[in-house]
Amino acid sequence: MAKQERAVRTRNALIQSAAELFTKDGFEAVSLSMISSRAGVSNGALHFHFPSKAALSAAVRDAAARRFGRITSAERPPPQYGGSLQSLVDTSHALLQGLRHDVVLRAGFDLGDGARDAGRGGDLHERWHAWVEDAVVRAAHEGLLSDVAPRDLVATVVGATVGFAALGEYDVRWLSHTTLTRFWSLLLPRIASAPALRGVVAAGRRAEAS
Amino acid sequence: MAKQERAVRTRNALIQSAAELFTKDGFEAVSLSMISSRAGVSNGALHFHFPSKAALSAAVRDAAARRFGRITSAERPPPQYGGSLQSLVDTSHALLQGLRHDVVLRAGFDLGDGARDAGRGGDLHERWHAWVEDAVVRAAHEGLLSDVAPRDLVATVVGATVGFAALGEYDVRWLSHTTLTRFWSLLLPRIASAPALRGVVAAGRRAEAS
Repeated sequence: MAKQERAVRTRNALIQSAAELFTKDGFEAVSLSMISSRAGVSNGALHFHFPSKAALSAAVRDAAARRFGRITSAERPPPQYGGSLQSLVDTSHALLQGLRHDVVLRAGFDLGDGARDAGRGGDLHERWHAWVEDAVVRAAHEGLLSDVAPRDLVATVVGATVGFAALGEYDVRWLSHTTLTRFWSLLLPRIASAPALRGVVAAGRRAEAS
Repeated sequence: MAKQERAVRTRNALIQSAAELFTKDGFEAVSLSMISSRAGVSNGALHFHFPSKAALSAAVRDAAARRFGRITSAERPPPQYGGSLQSLVDTSHALLQGLRHDVVLRAGFDLGDGARDAGRGGDLHERWHAWVEDAVVRAAHEGLLSDVAPRDLVATVVGATVGFAALGEYDVRWLSHTTLTRFWSLLLPRIASAPALRGVVAAGRRAEAS
């Protein structure tokens, strides 16, 4: 293995271990030596990559932001397959599945006390809020919405998805595909225009059962 | 002031200060002397009331549980005024207003890392979940619901309210009367039976603007 490749692997292992410990024990309670030990890396190697816990926390945040960016930049289906409304459904499913399976994304999205102190969490919530707003505006322009007030829809989607994420920290079933499908099954007949309702799938078009 | 009354006041001041510091700085980061200092009480007096941080944390949790119990035991309006469906709307408003203005309730409902470690938070979420389930079952028996699946409604209401509470830790507007009224305005036309829809008020029947 080339030296550079090994350095990248070490760095990623440290980010992964830091994310695991931050979400499990809270930012404040975790020490750098706990992180290096979990990653199977020496303290010296950790300090070579990250001079401080704040630097490591920033790296977790950046990695989470990149993963969030990938989830929210998936291609939108064409209008006859639900367009921006289906994209909103699909992306919310992808986000909750990501939070379920990817501890780095979870650490970046986390609402915990430590997250607030370290400046994590809030950023991704604001980006998610902005993304949902854009999707709702696009869906309205595409004629996919009934006569609901866009702001009511934005508040409801952001509130419910963030709530499922928060509850998922206690009980992973809140992050299941089933729970979010329940939400969209309830909501879609209210928010989708008649033609859109025929095309949009509450379970998501990229869905896998979970 | 009688000796006993003074003791009750001191105890309440310690619970209030502990709740303020737990939600602001996280459970782990707060020391007993920070709490006694904020409450304007000597360390000796604190130890007289609470032998440990765990005991004080339990007292915060108990106080929050009592306040939660009062919010969820308000009298239900008669069926012509929306019955159990209006009760669900009103109680969700009362809960978010409580979380906005009452730091003890907020500390008990908090989803932070420290809360998880200390065993707080989760309990009240489960009680809220159970309460919403009961309200939905009652509303269905009273003929107030359309043909929605009760489980879909429960997941949506619990998810959205917990999400507003979690987001409210970053931006208090998520706990506003306006935000929750948006949610119910969107949802009610979907979930209420035709006669119920005429009687139920999305803004709540005990509402004050905020």
